Amino acid sequence: MEKQEKLRLTALREAMRRNGIDCAVINSTDPHQSEIAPAHWRGREWLTGFKSENGTNGTAVVTQDKAYVWTDNRFFIQARQQLDGTGFEMMPLDGPDAVDMTGWICSHLKPEQTVAIDGMTNSVTDTLSLKEALDSKGIRLRADLDLLDEIWSDRPSRPLNELFVHDETLTGENTGDKIARVLEAAAKTTANAVLLPALDDIAWITNLRTSGDITFSPVFVAYLYLDLSGKKVLFTDGCKISADARAHLQKYGIETADYDTVTDFVSRLPEDTRLLIDPDLTAINIYEHISCATVMGGEDIARLKSIKNDTMLRNWGKAMEKDGVALVKFFSWIEKEFPAGNLTEMGIARKLREIRLSDPDCVDESFAAIVGWNEHGAIVHYEPSDATDVPVKGKGILLVDSGGQYKQGTTDITRTIALGGNPDSTQKHDFTLVLKGHIALSRAIFPKGTRGAQLDILARQFLWNEGKAYYHGTGHGVGFFINCHEGPVQIRMNDIPVALEPGMVLSNEPGLYIEGEYGIRCENLLAVEHLKTTPYGEFYHFRNLTLFPFDKKLIDFNMLTDDEKRWLEDYHREVYDRLSPLLNDEERGWLKDNTIFA
Amino acid sequence: MEKQEKLRLTALREAMRRNGIDCAVINSTDPHQSEIAPAHWRGREWLTGFKSENGTNGTAVVTQDKAYVWTDNRFFIQARQQLDGTGFEMMPLDGPDAVDMTGWICSHLKPEQTVAIDGMTNSVTDTLSLKEALDSKGIRLRADLDLLDEIWSDRPSRPLNELFVHDETLTGENTGDKIARVLEAAAKTTANAVLLPALDDIAWITNLRTSGDITFSPVFVAYLYLDLSGKKVLFTDGCKISADARAHLQKYGIETADYDTVTDFVSRLPEDTRLLIDPDLTAINIYEHISCATVMGGEDIARLKSIKNDTMLRNWGKAMEKDGVALVKFFSWIEKEFPAGNLTEMGIARKLREIRLSDPDCVDESFAAIVGWNEHGAIVHYEPSDATDVPVKGKGILLVDSGGQYKQGTTDITRTIALGGNPDSTQKHDFTLVLKGHIALSRAIFPKGTRGAQLDILARQFLWNEGKAYYHGTGHGVGFFINCHEGPVQIRMNDIPVALEPGMVLSNEPGLYIEGEYGIRCENLLAVEHLKTTPYGEFYHFRNLTLFPFDKKLIDFNMLTDDEKRWLEDYHREVYDRLSPLLNDEERGWLKDNTIFA
Repeated sequence: MEKQEKLRLTALREAMRRNGIDCAVINSTDPHQSEIAPAHWRGREWLTGFKSENGTNGTAVVTQDKAYVWTDNRFFIQARQQLDGTGFEMMPLDGPDAVDMTGWICSHLKPEQTVAIDGMTNSVTDTLSLKEALDSKGIRLRADLDLLDEIWSDRPSRPLNELFVHDETLTGENTGDKIARVLEAAAKTTANAVLLPALDDIAWITNLRTSGDITFSPVFVAYLYLDLSGKKVLFTDGCKISADARAHLQKYGIETADYDTVTDFVSRLPEDTRLLIDPDLTAINIYEHISCATVMGGEDIARLKSIKNDTMLRNWGKAMEKDGVALVKFFSWIEKEFPAGNLTEMGIARKLREIRLSDPDCVDESFAAIVGWNEHGAIVHYEPSDATDVPVKGKGILLVDSGGQYKQGTTDITRTIALGGNPDSTQKHDFTLVLKGHIALSRAIFPKGTRGAQLDILARQFLWNEGKAYYHGTGHGVGFFINCHEGPVQIRMNDIPVALEPGMVLSNEPGLYIEGEYGIRCENLLAVEHLKTTPYGEFYHFRNLTLFPFDKKLIDFNMLTDDEKRWLEDYHREVYDRLSPLLNDEERGWLKDNTIFA
Repeated sequence: MEKQEKLRLTALREAMRRNGIDCAVINSTDPHQSEIAPAHWRGREWLTGFKSENGTNGTAVVTQDKAYVWTDNRFFIQARQQLDGTGFEMMPLDGPDAVDMTGWICSHLKPEQTVAIDGMTNSVTDTLSLKEALDSKGIRLRADLDLLDEIWSDRPSRPLNELFVHDETLTGENTGDKIARVLEAAAKTTANAVLLPALDDIAWITNLRTSGDITFSPVFVAYLYLDLSGKKVLFTDGCKISADARAHLQKYGIETADYDTVTDFVSRLPEDTRLLIDPDLTAINIYEHISCATVMGGEDIARLKSIKNDTMLRNWGKAMEKDGVALVKFFSWIEKEFPAGNLTEMGIARKLREIRLSDPDCVDESFAAIVGWNEHGAIVHYEPSDATDVPVKGKGILLVDSGGQYKQGTTDITRTIALGGNPDSTQKHDFTLVLKGHIALSRAIFPKGTRGAQLDILARQFLWNEGKAYYHGTGHGVGFFINCHEGPVQIRMNDIPVALEPGMVLSNEPGLYIEGEYGIRCENLLAVEHLKTTPYGEFYHFRNLTLFPFDKKLIDFNMLTDDEKRWLEDYHREVYDRLSPLLNDEERGWLKDNTIFA
């Protein structure tokens, strides 16, 4: 039986012929450049069959005789498997065999032929860069067609979930104050108005959230317009605006307008408007409708959002206690169930979700849990599915990377545990190298102005010393009850020119992946804090937020320095002290066994 | 008595009026963008009196009523002192009170007024950026005048020192092969010809050197043109071309032409020439004469030069042995002379120069030695002069940063020693923090692709842990019998997007500066080497080149880990083993005392 994707590809090619399109380029995002798009915009996944719960990075390029999906090295194996028999082939976006997508299009199309992209899901930056390349070859670009829409008969509707107010006792800052700060940042760029397309920016500013618009993040689909004259408009589907949300918006003088009217709105802005536009976030079709002057910029808004206030950080502590309790229940359950031999990766992931979501403040997981048993743990972005699920039994190493969207804060934690007997010395050695890197980054002290790339080696150094390495980032920014991956700050090998500032929250997740054997990752969340001011300047350090012990069975204590042992003991003591009052006797006993070194 | 600089300023203002110039901008470099310019081009120093042997970074801006010199924080104290009474005032280029020079010019001149720069000492990049700013205010820019030349009656002539051949047994690669590699790099940018203005690039490619064109570097003043048709022209003053140099140039088919004819030459290049030009290195006046197409780029040539071959590295080892022997003679001399109380910083610097230059292969120091006693050591770029010289006696810390230009390789070493009794525990503590950083960077192991900014924290971490810091770079590239500061690779806090590669040589020089008390710096040179290839990729490490012990009196051994002690013992053992055969009995005894831990 032919795969349905093959029929879809045929339908797309017919639509291309109808519209005089020689090459269709279909990406994976939405009009808001979301990392994970709502189902309504996941047409590239629908078309190609290359998909997952946590979202897949891929761009389909279709001509009458070729059909490719470009993706990055995290997805090579998965994409090849899922694309088999669909008529699509995988193309590597990076790695030694990388093929430049734009270069391919330029060399396979003839002058006067036409490429189509969806002008709503392509940013100004991406579109202009593609257009420049096509122009140089005399190839035309159209951004005014949504070819998929013509053939996607069962396309899900735009998400229409109701909004709720994220209480000020949790956010620590009201919407009015946030708007004032955003407009102040805009004014510094000489703009007098701003159009915000990024869903996490909008959720942060409005203190509004929803559940279900996007899997794993409580953001909602909208645009937000603000200007210095006091005009504030939220563009979103009317049925989303609950009574609470309406009262909240009215309190801060925010008008509402239908989501689809934003394009018309920007085409009729007063002539003296200087609209701040982030070209990386704004769709080319929106941009092309703007009638007034524009100012390119707006990076500072993401930076403002990334700096969490004391109320948020205090609440985050509560979220971590809730999450720690959930994890005690979860890992003690695994330990109890393991001997019977009936566990599977999928079953474990389902149980973890069930435990986390039993807390009414946890509205969702923060991403689809990665539960990797032995060799599956060595696939960095492994996500168990019916197709890949395996029993978790015998002897081995289990990697669990997961998190929750609590109203008090987003969590993201990875623990690697040994099951079915003591791990061997190589496994302990590898785990301890990763743990030493985790500890070194946790303990870092650094002056104001330091960027993530400068700290990154602290987490990698013990691996590098033995010729070992992991090739993902060490830490990403984390949102507060918004996106689990939040810009702009990161800790990674390539340089992100943004300094760490007090209030920023980042993950600390070094790892090691032994192909075909097992994966190791140790991940906590850290908050940047002011430590002290000396004659040499202002110094920062990290406060650890996450509360759950590391598996003592996997630690080779001979490899730890006294300072590292003390850090670990202090950390486990804090975990016990903060979680034990929230546990029942059995759980408390389990936690005691797993936190005390003796 | 009025300072002569005041008269010069008056003369310049008259010349400006004669030429209809409202603002003259005079920088510190030469037509080759040298870090240290030959005397012929040190007009800004002549004009303002702000100068030093190692060169000063400053730009004079003169109008009829204002006269400023912009300089960076390394020179604030020195510039203020030297500019006193000259009619010039210092302006900070960086730091909290920084004033933007271009911004100042734009806001102090009126539309239609005219700014003059020397189009031979201003690069394409700098000129275009200034022009853009001036254009926006309607201010004119002229780059065709050398105003200083009109008033600088005793201007030194262009340096006319004779060239000599840097023997192939030392360079390990002949000029023909280097030219082929440079043209290959040029061809990758689609160019078919290249004009090289950088003196160190030219010295490297031609295997020619001189002595005296530029203080502290054996480069010579010239341009080099190469193209794929085989044409090769060295533009330099004819009297520089010795018989040896002429024979060498003929061997590789390199024509010579008079230095001043380069502008005419580029204005008559064949029409199908695509000339590679590095806009950061090429003078705007040269660029504006080019008649053919240009390709902007050429960074890869600096990278090729920075990768030293095995012959160079082997010879560098010999240079380090020569330098180590000189330093044994020097430091043992200080120790012997110190008790009499007649030493001064200047006397010490002179003795060091005398000892180094007694080796016929050492043609110059690689920079004017920094000899800083106690509080002078805390001034990072301190250079003793008659005006600042102090006796070195009593008790304290002496910092000596110096190097030699040996035909076998350039050296650059800093040692900090305690004199007049045992240092106190704070001094030992500080020194050991710096030394621990030095050792950590020396021992680093890192994968292919790693950049300097990623390693930088290894040298700073122990200081940062105590709220201490130094704010200069940790390491600069070092040339092979060329410039002591060589691009493109560096180890510093800001990101330089160039990966470390085997054969690159860098300094490792963390420090700590206690204002008004003392300065500490530990500096060796390191060569990047391939270590091993593992399933995780190719890993590099550093091989230490410099051979001289660290002062044991300043080390707090309780602060060192076993690994650090072992590194230090191994290093001192290597120093002793390699230098002792080259020393007399007394020197050998001194070195033994200073290398053995017991």
